[in-house]
Amino acid sequence: MPRHSVIVPGFSFSGIPAGIKKSGALDLALIFSEKPATTAGSFTTNKIKAAPVKLSMKQISAHQGQAIIINSGNANACTGNGGYKNAQGMARMTAKALGISSSLVYVSSTGVIGRPLPIEKIRKAIPHLTGKLSPFDLDKVASSIMTTDTFAKIYSKKIRIGTNTGTMAGIAKGAGMICPNMATMLCFIMTDIAITPHALTSALGDAVKESFNRISIDNDMSTNDTVMIMANGLLKNKPLSKNSPFFKAFTDGLCDLTHKLSKMIVTDGEGATKFIEITITGARTETDAEIIARSVANSMLVKTAIYGRDPNWGRIIAAVGYSGIQVIEKKIDIYLNRIKLVNKGTGTGKESIATHQLARKNISILIDLGLGRKSAKALTCDMTEKYVQINAHYTT
Amino acid sequence: MPRHSVIVPGFSFSGIPAGIKKSGALDLALIFSEKPATTAGSFTTNKIKAAPVKLSMKQISAHQGQAIIINSGNANACTGNGGYKNAQGMARMTAKALGISSSLVYVSSTGVIGRPLPIEKIRKAIPHLTGKLSPFDLDKVASSIMTTDTFAKIYSKKIRIGTNTGTMAGIAKGAGMICPNMATMLCFIMTDIAITPHALTSALGDAVKESFNRISIDNDMSTNDTVMIMANGLLKNKPLSKNSPFFKAFTDGLCDLTHKLSKMIVTDGEGATKFIEITITGARTETDAEIIARSVANSMLVKTAIYGRDPNWGRIIAAVGYSGIQVIEKKIDIYLNRIKLVNKGTGTGKESIATHQLARKNISILIDLGLGRKSAKALTCDMTEKYVQINAHYTT
Repeated sequence: MPRHSVIVPGFSFSGIPAGIKKSGALDLALIFSEKPATTAGSFTTNKIKAAPVKLSMKQISAHQGQAIIINSGNANACTGNGGYKNAQGMARMTAKALGISSSLVYVSSTGVIGRPLPIEKIRKAIPHLTGKLSPFDLDKVASSIMTTDTFAKIYSKKIRIGTNTGTMAGIAKGAGMICPNMATMLCFIMTDIAITPHALTSALGDAVKESFNRISIDNDMSTNDTVMIMANGLLKNKPLSKNSPFFKAFTDGLCDLTHKLSKMIVTDGEGATKFIEITITGARTETDAEIIARSVANSMLVKTAIYGRDPNWGRIIAAVGYSGIQVIEKKIDIYLNRIKLVNKGTGTGKESIATHQLARKNISILIDLGLGRKSAKALTCDMTEKYVQINAHYTT
Repeated sequence: MPRHSVIVPGFSFSGIPAGIKKSGALDLALIFSEKPATTAGSFTTNKIKAAPVKLSMKQISAHQGQAIIINSGNANACTGNGGYKNAQGMARMTAKALGISSSLVYVSSTGVIGRPLPIEKIRKAIPHLTGKLSPFDLDKVASSIMTTDTFAKIYSKKIRIGTNTGTMAGIAKGAGMICPNMATMLCFIMTDIAITPHALTSALGDAVKESFNRISIDNDMSTNDTVMIMANGLLKNKPLSKNSPFFKAFTDGLCDLTHKLSKMIVTDGEGATKFIEITITGARTETDAEIIARSVANSMLVKTAIYGRDPNWGRIIAAVGYSGIQVIEKKIDIYLNRIKLVNKGTGTGKESIATHQLARKNISILIDLGLGRKSAKALTCDMTEKYVQINAHYTT
């Protein structure tokens, strides 16, 4: 899925090994825009926030950014005042090397919580990092931010803005802590399309709601989750506002991009062997549908059953029932890859046909509540022994 | 832990294999009181309730019961009108064989959801079941209600009521669906102490709140969860009311019994190798403490870390943060088996000492929020590959 040599006009990239990861893998990355970009961000709602997240949340209100420095291997979370100073230091050192204001440099970290950031290693690495900036190295940034991800996640697309064609590219990391507990999710999006801060913030909000927020429960977020977008305006279109005729094209393009990246994150869920799409239809409200979709997506019993190729719809309907949303058992239909397993609350006896479908990698679960006209989707992966193995031995 | 030959005056028991489980194991059980007993119950809050739960919830308002028939191997949930008729049929057939009113017979089921109850097998088995009633066979009932439990859960105690000594005995099943998703929990408690319906209901409510409700999240309940208590009054004490001087002794005894049984359930969690007690202190309110305790207890990442003997306190503090309760990072202390891992929000560097502690079977996590004087506990187990294996292949 990685696409090499994605170019976004005015942006350059670099990724190097700075020795933060013991393995010697890439662990420090930089995204740089040749001119300050309109910037928007969405951050973890966890009450415990990593130092770089606290710093970024202060900066984002100015809606301006020119660089993002990202390290993996250390979350710089629960590191006290020293951790916050280290995050500030990373921004300041990067700004100095780039010759820009440190208020335009965002910092992001991912990795183990509670260990002091090895700031000296980062200090030494920054000249190499800035020295290697290249418009062709977005894939190196995508690789540098990986933790337990098994592949780099990059997606790009072209968006027509009147007679011009803009570019939008995004990278993401996930894998760790996605299902069911926390999406330690980082995503950085770059575009040359000009857009106002208000319109950019609104478009990002919509895109996150429909994508990354559908792959984890709101309250189950990590200390470091960050989604940022920088729009440097090099396309020279009239900056899009929410009333612009091309705003919808921009938002649709951004939603598609974040949806594709979140799908890659789920596909690369720790130890996952299957991709599961859960669709709730016939709900009274969209919120009802969302809550039920997440309840099913987060059920350990549903996820282990799918892994075991077991069409145990009882676990699905139980997860619908414990979502807290009022449902009527006798109105519920459940389909697994279009095989109707439940009709009006009782089994159809088609488990053996469904078992064959469960050999596939892509599984769709459709639950029609029969109560209204609203719907929602959630994406998840199956739950395997490998997930346990990966997470039983992460820091040590 | 099973204690054989527990006798509760006036109660008799039987458990037989009725062929509901393919394995030929015990799967049908009966609890009978020689005289109608004051009865109270607590049932699943899942919106999808099994047929026998629906029936029991209707009956319980009369606060009278004389028998409970329980089958394992089939949950009789999501089985439509036929399922409800089968639950009624089980009660009627049992009542007829015992020569009592069917309104005094409660039905309980546990096992796979969505399969028709094999009512003919149960019909044929009931004469054998009633024929084998014995005061010495409580352990057979405890064995008959097991699903993936690895040991029968029985606990009994004596309670002083003035100059008399009453007996209270309980059995439970859990194991499946406990952590983190659903406690398919059944518990039946018998006592010869006389007590009013109102006082019994109140005492049971308190006991469940402090025990079984602390081993799973409210909304994560199965379709079949049931806790029932029958008090037949054979001790001939003046029936306890809430104002009685001995009501506290009764409630304390019941709380101790349900706590012991819930501890056995957690110890026997599917695939579990460790018992984990999470204590939250220094909370502003008890509800805050409860919510945080459950958030940590249900964290897959905490549970896998403990399994891997990894003192990864970052996952613990992250679960505190995403509980939704307002906390102050700089006030949080965390102890693992009395080793202080976190002091005022940052690590103490004692991970290597804690790693040794994690070799033990019993793990205590103490989190002091430093915000107030309220506290709460939650019990859970670790998360292992074996949990996945068990649940990937449960119905097939």
